[in-house]
Parts: sequence; C-alpha cells; structure tokens
Amino acid sequence: MTQRQQRIENVTVATVDHANYGDGYGLLKNAVVCIEAGTISYVGPAAEAPATAADAEVIDAGGKLLTPGLIDCHTHLVWAGSRADEFAQRLHGVSYSEIASQGGGIAATVRATRAASQDELVNVSSPRLAALMREGVTTVEIKSGYGLSLEHERKQLLAAKQLAAANPVSVQTTLLAAHALPPEFKDNADAYIDAIVEQILPTLADEGLVDAVDAFCENVGFSPAQTERVFQAAQQRGLPVKLHAEQLSNQHGSALAARYQALSCDHLEYLDEDGVKAMAASGTVAVLLPGAFYFLRETKLPPLDLLRQHGVPIALATDANPGTSPILSLQLMLQMGATLFRMTPEECLQGVTSHAAQALGLNDRGRIKAGLRADLCLWDCDDAAELTYQFGTDRLLNCWHQGVLR
Amino acid sequence: MTQRQQRIENVTVATVDHANYGDGYGLLKNAVVCIEAGTISYVGPAAEAPATAADAEVIDAGGKLLTPGLIDCHTHLVWAGSRADEFAQRLHGVSYSEIASQGGGIAATVRATRAASQDELVNVSSPRLAALMREGVTTVEIKSGYGLSLEHERKQLLAAKQLAAANPVSVQTTLLAAHALPPEFKDNADAYIDAIVEQILPTLADEGLVDAVDAFCENVGFSPAQTERVFQAAQQRGLPVKLHAEQLSNQHGSALAARYQALSCDHLEYLDEDGVKAMAASGTVAVLLPGAFYFLRETKLPPLDLLRQHGVPIALATDANPGTSPILSLQLMLQMGATLFRMTPEECLQGVTSHAAQALGLNDRGRIKAGLRADLCLWDCDDAAELTYQFGTDRLLNCWHQGVLR
Ligand SMILES: [Zn+2]
Ligand SMILES: [Zn+2]
Repeated sequence: MTQRQQRIENVTVATVDHANYGDGYGLLKNAVVCIEAGTISYVGPAAEAPATAADAEVIDAGGKLLTPGLIDCHTHLVWAGSRADEFAQRLHGVSYSEIASQGGGIAATVRATRAASQDELVNVSSPRLAALMREGVTTVEIKSGYGLSLEHERKQLLAAKQLAAANPVSVQTTLLAAHALPPEFKDNADAYIDAIVEQILPTLADEGLVDAVDAFCENVGFSPAQTERVFQAAQQRGLPVKLHAEQLSNQHGSALAARYQALSCDHLEYLDEDGVKAMAASGTVAVLLPGAFYFLRETKLPPLDLLRQHGVPIALATDANPGTSPILSLQLMLQMGATLFRMTPEECLQGVTSHAAQALGLNDRGRIKAGLRADLCLWDCDDAAELTYQFGTDRLLNCWHQGVLR
Repeated sequence: MTQRQQRIENVTVATVDHANYGDGYGLLKNAVVCIEAGTISYVGPAAEAPATAADAEVIDAGGKLLTPGLIDCHTHLVWAGSRADEFAQRLHGVSYSEIASQGGGIAATVRATRAASQDELVNVSSPRLAALMREGVTTVEIKSGYGLSLEHERKQLLAAKQLAAANPVSVQTTLLAAHALPPEFKDNADAYIDAIVEQILPTLADEGLVDAVDAFCENVGFSPAQTERVFQAAQQRGLPVKLHAEQLSNQHGSALAARYQALSCDHLEYLDEDGVKAMAASGTVAVLLPGAFYFLRETKLPPLDLLRQHGVPIALATDANPGTSPILSLQLMLQMGATLFRMTPEECLQGVTSHAAQALGLNDRGRIKAGLRADLCLWDCDDAAELTYQFGTDRLLNCWHQGVLR
C-alpha cells in the first residue's frame, strides 16, 4: 500500500512517551506529526520537522489533542445469544442459582455460541466492534472461551480473525479455553484441562490462531494447579500467558502467573502485596476492569496504591462480555477508572494506550513516537483530562489505523 | 407541513400504555403503527388497521422493537467552560474546599456561562444535545441556573430555545435561578430570592421562556422557606414547579413541593416515607438521577421500595451538568438505573418515556397511543430488556420526531 505522506500540524500531542517527554501525558504542544507508509515518521517541534513532501497531505489540527489510538486489551467480544432475559429475571428477584439451574449464566452463552456458525458470530459481534471503533479503538484483544471444545474455540477465534479482516482495526486473539467447564466434562475439570493442553491449545496454536493464552483462576473457575498446566502448555509452544486473577477471592494466581512472565493479570480486586511484588518483578501489567466491578456492584477495590508503590503498570479495558460487563465502551472505562478507582486522567490514558499495548506484548504501538505504528486519534478538545471527565459526547475528529484515516 | 401517511408494519410495540396494554412494557406484537401529520393515528393489530393510503410510506420493521421517543426530563445541558481541570485536580488529591477557594466548582461554570454569548452557548452545547439525540432522545428538559441574573438566565434559556429551533428535538425550559447564590449576593440569599421573585421569574415568564420553575433546596443551597417563596411566585404566574430535593440531606423539600403540586422532585436519596406519601398524594413524579449518584460515589440509595409501595411514578434522567454528572447518555442511565438502583427494565423504560413525560407535565407523548405525538424509536432488538442490559452498541434504527424521520 503506497500512501502519500501525511503531516499533522499545529497539534497538541499526548505522546504517552515517558522516556522522551516525561510523566503523565507526555505532552508536546505546537507539534508536527508525520506519517509515512503506516508509520509515524516524525513527532516533534515544527522547527525541527522534515521538509514537507511535495505531495504531502497537510492537516491543520487547530491545536487539538492527538493521542495514540486506543487499545482495548481485554474483551470477550465474540459471543452469540443474549442474557438480557436473565438480567431482567435477576431484577425481578430470581436468584442466580435458580437461573443457573435453568441452564442460564455462562452455560447459555456457550450453548448459543456453539449453535452459531462462524458467519453468524461475525454478524452479531460486528456492532460490538463498531461501538469500540467509534470511540477511537484501533487495537482490540478478543478472547475465546465460549466454545470450550476444539471445534468451537477455533470457530470463535476464526470469527475474531474475520472481524479483523473486515474492519480497519487490529485484533489480538487470546485462547481462553480454560474459561469454564463444558457440559461434557461436568465434575471432571482435570480431564478438560487434559483436552486443553493435549489437543485444543497445541492444535489452535499450530493453526496460527493464538497470540496469547489465558485462564480463569478462581474458586468458581480453575484451580492454580490446573491453571499452571495450561501455562506450561503455552510455554512449550512459546506463547505468552495472561490470567483472570483474584477477581472474587485471593487464589494467588497472580504470583503463579508472574512465575510464567505473564503479560498481564486481570481484575485483581483481591490481590495482596505479595502478588503485587511478584507482578512488579516479572513486569506483568495489572489490567483493571471497572465495567465488571460496576456491573457486579463489587465494593472491594483493586489495590491501586500498592500497584503504584511497586511500579506495576496499570491498564484499563472493557471486559466486554454478556455475563459480567455487557458494556461496549472503552471511553466509559476511562470515566469509571477515574470515578470508581480514583485513577488520575493521566493513568487512565496510559491505561488504554501504552500500558494496554504492554498487556498485549506489543511494543510497536500505544505511544506517539517515530518508528511506531501510526494508530492515532485526534480529539475535539484541548485538555486530555476531558477524555476521562466527560462521557457521551462524540469528540473523535479523526482516527488513523496504520496510517489510514478511517 | 404536509406528510405522507407512514405505516410501520410487522413491529413489536412497547406501548408503555398501561391503560390499554397492561403493566410493564405494554407489549403488542405483530402490530401496525400509523403516523399522520406528526401524530400517531393508529396502533393495534394488523387485522384491524385502517386501509393503507395509496401514497403511504410502508416500513417493514421485521419484528423489531418500537418504543416511544426517549425523554430526558432533567438536564443542565447549556453551560460554558469545562471542569475537567478541577476533576483532574481532585484525582491528584486537591480537596474540594481548596478548589472552591480558588473560585472553582459551580462558580467557575457561572463565570464562564456569563462570559459566553448566546451563540457561543449554543455552539458548545450542540454536541451535548447531539449525544442525547443520537441515542433516541426526542424531548429534553433544559434548566437555567448558571446565569443567576436576569440577563444571563435569559441568555441561557434563549440558548435552549435556539437549540430547539436548530434541531429535530423538543425542548422544555425550566427556570432554575434558585440554583446557587451569585457572587453579587454573597451572604445575602434572601435578597437574591427577592430578585428572583420580583424580577427574574416574572420577567422571563412574561417573555415566554419558562415552562416550569425549579430550585435547589439543600443545606448547601436554598432553605425550604426560600424555596417556598420561589414556588409562590411560580404559582402566581400559573407555572408548575419542580424541586432538587433530599439529595444530600433530608430538608423535607419534597413535602413542601407536594403542597405546590410539583410535577417532580428530583434526586431523593434522603427522602423519607412522609415525603413519599406527600408525593404520592400530589401525583408528583420521583426523578432519579443515577449519573450524579455514580459520579459522587453516593452510597445512600433513593427509597425505591417506598416509592413503589406508595405508587409514586419513577423517572430517570441524566442530570447532565459539569459538576456532578458530566454524562451525556440517557441509555447509560437505563443501565445504571438497573445496576445501581435495581430498577427493573420495565421501570427503566417507563422512567425515560411515560413517567418522564409526566415529570414535564406533558400528556401528549411518552406512550404509543393513537392521538399522541409520533415521537418514536425503532431499535435493532427484539426484547425491550436489551435497552437496559447492554450499553454501548448503537441499536437505534430509526427515530421519528413529530412524525418526521431524523
Ligand atoms: Zn474477562
Ligand atoms: Zn440537577
């Protein structure tokens, strides 16, 4: 793809590039940003910018704010069926156990996802991806975990790849076969873990469908020992791992994940200081999910101060899923990160850019720096705090994905 | 304006018309809805529908859901300036009193709003109105209350009228001069109330700018005695009243408002049973504002069960404002009404349709019934609970304002 040079002039840049521009937003005012062949070729003061190419496309940003394209580093975006009915039942007083005994909860989503074709999954998931893209998301992680068999986990990951091919957005796929126990393996979790490590994981990894491997380590999910078997299988294939950890109780999953150099541990409401230290030592990102915190009316906050003290990078993501976070808005996560978790606007922006990239093991994006991918958002505001503070208005003026305006 | 007849066929209708279709959504399946001259001319089964006019425009809804146009019955949508900076300061540990002593808080919004021209107010407020309209809002209430003088309260209300003239949406204007004490009347609230009842209210009422009169009755606002003087002045002009009541403490403002047959009392976290009974007796609507509850991290819930027991109609609104609810999304209020207040999806939908209309004293909209205004939303879903359950995806297929597709 040949592209004319693009030159964004008169722009306020939140580089999020701490090495070069200091903490917080890494602000650079009255700047020029150049894009060539999908890559940022220059970011800096106008005085030092390269000469404008004869055929360059020049964009006067009028002093508005440029940020890295947003990255949603934790979603379960591809699912079929709806849980609106059980949401309504719960509000009418039906208990969770009654709903589960009727086959509701995640079992309902697994049934519907298994029953759907790959094309049907793509069709029902497209509006969800569109919602994220509308808000400036240029990279999104999508997990499997509603198929729970080789065939249906493959179908979910292929649907994610198909969504990526059909839209100007980058998708990272995560295998989350160890999300829940499929009905075929009722009361036999170890045998399901056997199937994952012997069949599902190696097969789908060989098919090139797996960028990372995740598990749900919880007393209502898989044990640390079972989780570790999944990690070992991932390690054998050279795949990085992530973990749904310490959401409902402290299973010490984060320390386990850290021993496997996990890219991220996610949720973390019940994380203790030992887990924080382990994550700090392994360079593991803490992915916080305020949508699930909100939707579950959780009151236990993740240990923000400990994470800060020990220098653990903090990311924010939607956790978009039908059971515990039916919320397709990364911008709302910025608002909730600040309001519910008292994260600063600077932390919130890092959480959906540089730290989110790190949580996906991607070092080619998430900051505005020469040589990185030209995934960029131009916003109709001057102060980057606006992105966190006010929710609902459409401030996205331009969004570039790999240098192409979309 | 002459319009061709429109005929929406094969549609699932949430009429919210309890008199004819029962409680909850008032559902009617496989229905036909006809629109003529901006009005709903028929709603009912296809078999009994009038003959299709020769030039009628026929819309096959494919079984999708039709609801009344959404009504946001409590906003402070017209303001200038931004409070993103003080939002960031708060998150960096600066106290509210420090910010207030620097001239922040509502004083900052009053200064910026006074400094703005009417056109500037319209320009900065337009994206906020667009955000509401994008989600299906067809009627929005807009309060003054950042001008706090005859000239500037007038300007704010004129800006609201100008927004209405420029957009396919209906605006109800509420005079909220008794919102805060302007600097000219520091330590002299009674004298400001004099100015409101002797000058501001009668003048702006005579100019046709006031649909209703509101006040902020709170220990950090105006006393019940001061509030009552405002109500008396409104009553003398034949204007209905509303009240910001029992948000931070129980001032018994709701009982006072009920004595003046208030259309609504709003917020209500600290409302007690006597207040609920008074509202029930006067037919006053309880307008709940989950955005402010969320943003202020309030933990005291409004007394939902008492409101239900005594049959007080419950509405939901954004309270869109720069200080305590910078959230321009009525659909998020549906989600929050359910998640934070445990309202059922049926209550949430009534809260932004029939009960919101009642909170504005409007009996020509908010339900789908022959003779009412053709303010309608067609949604890409089958189950009305979806509107409350999942947030972020754009489900609005069509929106009619007074019979015109927008
Ligand atoms: Zn998750
Ligand atoms: Zn208000």
